[in-house]
Amino acid sequence: MKKIINKPENFVEEFMEGILAAYGDRVKTLDPEKKILVRSEKPAAGKVGIVTAGGSGHLPVFLGYVGAGMLDGCAVGEVFASPSAKKMEDMIRYVDQGNGVLCLYGNYGGDVMNFEMACENLDFDGIRTEQVLVKDDVASRPKEEADMRRGVAGMVYAFKVAGAAADEMLSLDEVAQTAREALENIRTMGFALTPCIVPMAGKATFSIGENDLELGMGIHGEPGIEVCEMKPADEIADIVLDKLLDDMPVASGEEVSVMINGLGATPLEELFILYRRVHERLKEKGISVYMPHVGEFATSMEMAGASITVFRLNDKMKKYLRKAADTPFYTNHNK
Amino acid sequence: MKKIINKPENFVEEFMEGILAAYGDRVKTLDPEKKILVRSEKPAAGKVGIVTAGGSGHLPVFLGYVGAGMLDGCAVGEVFASPSAKKMEDMIRYVDQGNGVLCLYGNYGGDVMNFEMACENLDFDGIRTEQVLVKDDVASRPKEEADMRRGVAGMVYAFKVAGAAADEMLSLDEVAQTAREALENIRTMGFALTPCIVPMAGKATFSIGENDLELGMGIHGEPGIEVCEMKPADEIADIVLDKLLDDMPVASGEEVSVMINGLGATPLEELFILYRRVHERLKEKGISVYMPHVGEFATSMEMAGASITVFRLNDKMKKYLRKAADTPFYTNHNK
Repeated sequence: MKKIINKPENFVEEFMEGILAAYGDRVKTLDPEKKILVRSEKPAAGKVGIVTAGGSGHLPVFLGYVGAGMLDGCAVGEVFASPSAKKMEDMIRYVDQGNGVLCLYGNYGGDVMNFEMACENLDFDGIRTEQVLVKDDVASRPKEEADMRRGVAGMVYAFKVAGAAADEMLSLDEVAQTAREALENIRTMGFALTPCIVPMAGKATFSIGENDLELGMGIHGEPGIEVCEMKPADEIADIVLDKLLDDMPVASGEEVSVMINGLGATPLEELFILYRRVHERLKEKGISVYMPHVGEFATSMEMAGASITVFRLNDKMKKYLRKAADTPFYTNHNK
Repeated sequence: MKKIINKPENFVEEFMEGILAAYGDRVKTLDPEKKILVRSEKPAAGKVGIVTAGGSGHLPVFLGYVGAGMLDGCAVGEVFASPSAKKMEDMIRYVDQGNGVLCLYGNYGGDVMNFEMACENLDFDGIRTEQVLVKDDVASRPKEEADMRRGVAGMVYAFKVAGAAADEMLSLDEVAQTAREALENIRTMGFALTPCIVPMAGKATFSIGENDLELGMGIHGEPGIEVCEMKPADEIADIVLDKLLDDMPVASGEEVSVMINGLGATPLEELFILYRRVHERLKEKGISVYMPHVGEFATSMEMAGASITVFRLNDKMKKYLRKAADTPFYTNHNK
């Protein structure tokens, strides 16, 4: 294993200390274990809070989106492991300004169980919460089982849109409804070329053949839908885009945002080669792209590969997507 | 070779097409070969132009910094190869608004030769240019030969500061002097864990042992100053920081900006583990960090590793560093 780390057991604590050292003017932690990250300033009075949670190893997801215009807090787990219900509960208590808190997170067993426990406890104390689960990964389950799909990079669009809605001082129900409406129009699929290494394991816990491509692999190495020989970029882009548009048809004349997300080890150049093809194919179909996002948004440490997300827009979603945001890992200064 | 590409010979053209498809509202190319990238809008009348050039395979360097507050243009070469003098010349003719153009680029043989040819031709036509070479890589030559050092990630700070100075409508001499002053206070050193693959070669053209770390390796795989066994992150950070501060002493009470730059395949988590240590060590020395930059700024495709840059600041440099900028790969919306 060649990783730029110290003791594997200190991996999460140490990168959190690095993030706090770099961005301590904008974010802070609430606990000595540094597992609850919130904005330095409390949310505006009356604003609905928005929080998320999840395992580590996916930067900028999840905690990188805590900041102005997006999230109010994130509970941070160990690598690929959910944070505890207690951390979620403490975070929500802190974030709540009396108008309730939206829990917006990926559909993973541990996170769901812990958020449910946390919200139940909060309910006793009269703190209102709503839970909206991100299930954008079309490769994780067939369409008939869409409700059991995992959440991947599409969650970044959901954070953005919900954050903008909350900043307009909408109610908890309205913010939750906005997030649900966004997610109904977001689909993602990824593919991996190499595995990643969990620091405590010290070696890859799954493998991908030397010349293979795993279509649909999850961000923790969950098996995909097909292992095949490595293909040219355009072919990969076509397979993924067809799958997304088959699951969520987009008509000629409509607008989408597209996210080409690197999983960690893939050069930026290659992400733009993918984007080129996706853009071209959409253009042929009469679909235009608004505010493309190309870069690393939700990674799996040193996994090589990428995911493609399509977000079908309407005027409301465009407005929320465009609105200014400023977090340590996401900046948008549109007027 | 597993790269997300189509034909290797189309690598540069295709990622350029992707960049133009994504950011066509902000940048454009001047030539059918798409090797001259400029801002969509001409520089303001009277503003000194700032251009750079270099081989491909280092995104966001070099072209990613063309945009408001930074560069006016970039001539783009094939992977690890200088663009032609003709492209540089055409770019400078376009960018010049009558007050001259600063050529600000890394100290590599081909780039130097071609910029010199271009500037000589322009001189015949009365177009004024100044050349400032970036030589921030302390590992590439000992201090006595500092003038022969290569330019690496520190150039991004130079682009930022020179761009801000040009926006204040300073003269060509003043903008060039500002860039030189910045560069006198910028030092970088990198280290690599794995090699990278030039698409046309199809395999790594140099190797790094399974358990080895190459201290000081260049962004094209130029040999470093030492090959050693892989070390803990803190030890690596200490070695690099000591080397930087030995070359350019910084006194207690001074302020620096620090860039932790991932070379391509290194997870963000690991960059923050490095930042943590650098921040801590500087703090012990009474040196504070202003506007840290942690992420990918100058890469070598899928090379794993990182570089650390220290930029010693004064009030003028802080002002220019802070000033707003908006390019496809660098956004800063400070007031």
